[in-house]
Amino acid sequence: MPRTDPLKNIRIVLCETSHPGNIGAAARAMKTMGLTKLHLVQPQRFPDPEANWRAARATDVLDKAKVHETLDAALHGVGLSVACSARTREIAVPQSGVREVAARAIAVARSQSVALVFGNETFGLTTEQVNKCGVLATIPANPRYPSLNLAAAVQVFAYELRTAAQENDAPTLEPRLAPHEDVERFYAHLETLMTEVGFLNPEHPKKLMPRLRRLFARARLEPEEINILRGIIKALSRSNR
Amino acid sequence: MPRTDPLKNIRIVLCETSHPGNIGAAARAMKTMGLTKLHLVQPQRFPDPEANWRAARATDVLDKAKVHETLDAALHGVGLSVACSARTREIAVPQSGVREVAARAIAVARSQSVALVFGNETFGLTTEQVNKCGVLATIPANPRYPSLNLAAAVQVFAYELRTAAQENDAPTLEPRLAPHEDVERFYAHLETLMTEVGFLNPEHPKKLMPRLRRLFARARLEPEEINILRGIIKALSRSNR
Repeated sequence: MPRTDPLKNIRIVLCETSHPGNIGAAARAMKTMGLTKLHLVQPQRFPDPEANWRAARATDVLDKAKVHETLDAALHGVGLSVACSARTREIAVPQSGVREVAARAIAVARSQSVALVFGNETFGLTTEQVNKCGVLATIPANPRYPSLNLAAAVQVFAYELRTAAQENDAPTLEPRLAPHEDVERFYAHLETLMTEVGFLNPEHPKKLMPRLRRLFARARLEPEEINILRGIIKALSRSNR
Repeated sequence: MPRTDPLKNIRIVLCETSHPGNIGAAARAMKTMGLTKLHLVQPQRFPDPEANWRAARATDVLDKAKVHETLDAALHGVGLSVACSARTREIAVPQSGVREVAARAIAVARSQSVALVFGNETFGLTTEQVNKCGVLATIPANPRYPSLNLAAAVQVFAYELRTAAQENDAPTLEPRLAPHEDVERFYAHLETLMTEVGFLNPEHPKKLMPRLRRLFARARLEPEEINILRGIIKALSRSNR
């Protein structure tokens, strides 16, 4: 069996980036660590000469970059998505350090696509964007000035990924994970069912769906489990009619 | 004995930097990791508005930066000096990885000054400069494109220093977990509900419950989550009658 380079299965997703220079610098940071797949969600200016200049000899990464309208489109087919954010906040998904998440990302990336998702330079990721990811990872930083430059944050994550890939050459047994779009469909069905039976009031949803997302994100759903859960929801909806 | 913050004892030394923007970005990278002491050996342009712009809210690090004529002057009083270089070459000093060197630097910095020395953007450190240091450290990188941006390299080293400093005294954050009996009660309710709606046939249960147990065991349910799940089941049972 040919061995896959896990770094080739990892994409960097930059959401709503303001400065093209940061996109170029991120591409350079990626390439120095052996990452090649760049996905951009609604970049403000791209392509742009400033991006090419800051990319130095990593313009090939920019040339192959894919631009998307939505984060869901950028995460299509992804097994594990990591929200990379400095902000600690009330969120649905489990939290982790960079090093732990890198080891896990490499293990998954030996057989499935992994995405690292970064937000806008000023505002970071929205809560909605974070909640679409399976885990939130934060670079340990100076609490009085935790604001790493976007490309610098990409560099740290990419460095930890490369280090993890080298340290752990032995393939670990990582279960196959359900793709992003199937998990989202499950959440949508669950939400509909709970609304039907009156457990969820769409006018006052409170934190119900984020809490359930957090629970299932920790479980890291496998494809068969998604099938079981959707089967249960279907049976409940039928009996409810 | 009062504990010294080892990060306060570590200086970043940038030699013959060409672009003031890189000095500013390095200052920002330092401050995000709690480093404050910047030393510059013959910078081409400093101070400079470009440096201040790229430093963002780390201009205080630039304001306190010390400019020297020679590397020796910048290393005055330093116990351990680390040459940070991507290039492998014939050198006199011992070589090490970033992580190992960071642990050692932190240990030394609890009582003595430590310096991390970075070379010019294009030419790196000269052999003479490397030989003035006690150890050479290299960031593991893509052999076909190992050229990290200067500030990105500073970010990786600074991140490893902060991580090494924290590793000793980091309390682990373990969430509160639901007690066994509550989890079991949840499983029992779930099983009853699924039997009621015909999804589970008690005569032929297959592996349904063990699979669901496995899923929720991975999630490691918290007390509030158990309450939410039991609330959902109650709502579903009611609507089912």
